Amino acid sequence: MDEFSLIQQFFSVAQNKTAQDGVILGIGDDAAIIKPAEGEVLLFTTDTLINGVHFPLDTAARAIGHKALAVNLSDIAAMAGQARWFTLALSLPEPDPAWLKDFSEGLFALAKQFSVSLVGGDTTRGPLSITLSVIGTIQEKRAIRRSTAKPGDAIYITGHLGTATLGLAAINDEITLSEIDLSNCRNKLDFPQPRLQEGYFLRDYASSMIDISDGLTSDLDHILRASDCRAVIDSESLKKALPATIDLPDRKVIEAALYGGDDYELLFTVAASKVLKLEQSWPHTFSPLTQIGEITKGEGMVLKGDNGQDMKITACGYNHFHD
Amino acid sequence: MDEFSLIQQFFSVAQNKTAQDGVILGIGDDAAIIKPAEGEVLLFTTDTLINGVHFPLDTAARAIGHKALAVNLSDIAAMAGQARWFTLALSLPEPDPAWLKDFSEGLFALAKQFSVSLVGGDTTRGPLSITLSVIGTIQEKRAIRRSTAKPGDAIYITGHLGTATLGLAAINDEITLSEIDLSNCRNKLDFPQPRLQEGYFLRDYASSMIDISDGLTSDLDHILRASDCRAVIDSESLKKALPATIDLPDRKVIEAALYGGDDYELLFTVAASKVLKLEQSWPHTFSPLTQIGEITKGEGMVLKGDNGQDMKITACGYNHFHD
Repeated sequence: MDEFSLIQQFFSVAQNKTAQDGVILGIGDDAAIIKPAEGEVLLFTTDTLINGVHFPLDTAARAIGHKALAVNLSDIAAMAGQARWFTLALSLPEPDPAWLKDFSEGLFALAKQFSVSLVGGDTTRGPLSITLSVIGTIQEKRAIRRSTAKPGDAIYITGHLGTATLGLAAINDEITLSEIDLSNCRNKLDFPQPRLQEGYFLRDYASSMIDISDGLTSDLDHILRASDCRAVIDSESLKKALPATIDLPDRKVIEAALYGGDDYELLFTVAASKVLKLEQSWPHTFSPLTQIGEITKGEGMVLKGDNGQDMKITACGYNHFHD
Repeated sequence: MDEFSLIQQFFSVAQNKTAQDGVILGIGDDAAIIKPAEGEVLLFTTDTLINGVHFPLDTAARAIGHKALAVNLSDIAAMAGQARWFTLALSLPEPDPAWLKDFSEGLFALAKQFSVSLVGGDTTRGPLSITLSVIGTIQEKRAIRRSTAKPGDAIYITGHLGTATLGLAAINDEITLSEIDLSNCRNKLDFPQPRLQEGYFLRDYASSMIDISDGLTSDLDHILRASDCRAVIDSESLKKALPATIDLPDRKVIEAALYGGDDYELLFTVAASKVLKLEQSWPHTFSPLTQIGEITKGEGMVLKGDNGQDMKITACGYNHFHD
């Protein structure tokens, strides 16, 4: 089977089942032709997943397909945009129809869920790696950036933090989890849910926003540096950010929440004047909302302990090429 | 040095020197924000280069940076579009400042030449591979596709064919070239010039268009299948498509022109009524123009020999995962 048959079999056909909104010409020419609506600006992002780095070596093909798209959609969510079109660059050691079938099913199930269309790609022989590029759209001047947090803003997260990293720790035999917790944590690691609905809803509320890919401290640090602010994180709130079923010492829970990556929840700030309305209007079908701290003047991050003492914390999330 | 410092040092800074037309927010947030002009549609394409597959293992970093962008810009050229913005996904085994400096210089020199802006990226540790995604723009309904060639159209190419493949053959000691020819052929292999000016000019002339990446027969076959046509190629014209200095038997020259990949010239068809005007108005600063054959009714490709005999030819360009 040659490259063109591969692409045709698994991607050209499948993509016809996803939304075609704005696609004038899809896969099969030198470039796709797409048409945004008037008044929209584009959001453009790219992310690579490498075997054994961004997912464990034993990860199911379906999960890899899902995750490759999810991490990119999460970036569009973090700008408060709507994801629309994507390209897929897939390197794999050899064409394996069973693997490709599962991979494409994982990819297209998520694409369908969020009405995003595959419009182009490139398949090459090489070590397994997947790079997706996504274009999203948003009304001009409505995108939420990292650089616009202000002292006095409340700091929020969606969903649970640390779940994915605990799943990875359990796979690596570093901790022991109950069967149900292991299954939940592994599911979060393998099938992260991009918070597109939540992000889009937040365009009316968030003063700044980022998605948590490298870990809370690491990604909060990006907001703080870009916005020239300081953050005080409340350790009691952080404890609530892990699912209640997981039975681990508080210290482990807080460490996982602070430094664990791969959760793909949203981290955002909200002006004090909008906090009440946000909490009242947050749909119950969304990923849960938790206030975890406050933006203040200054720089750096502080963890406010339940003993009343403050502890300085630093960005130590997962980092490629870290010394 | 961590991932973020790497990106900042070589890419965030350098990108400020390229055109910023339409860039509302560049590198450094979850996604770039870009704004096409009214009435424009988008062209969206992605291509991966893998070490030892898409360039010889000894290729200079500067050439790799150039070529990674060039092959993507070539796809925009083949649609008759203008290249505008791109993202860079770079996997490399370890951060090597000298390599990154040369790579980014090659990349940005070409980006500057065609006023295209780097707006985002992802750097990961892994085997050397580079995936770029490019967004181009074009007035609605002006893009030139593969599927619109018609019987009676003339078939044209820009520039020389087979040069890059002869360079590769010489590197692999399969043929011997003079020093100057080797240098020219290696230069074409390492630093292909995307034909963006030529492609944009052709929006008024071409009935169909593609860039020659896999080889003439392979890429012509894409046009023929998409347009449901047949092509007759003239072998005398094809001989002229190699630089006159190269001293090789006719058979080798024609083989290189028919099957050699990596030239990134444009292959296009022109209605008979537009041929004269095209030839008269083709700027002399452009890559030279050569008519190499004609589109007819039917299917497949035929090579018309100088002995008057026709020979059936098939698509045998370079093909990943080819049996």
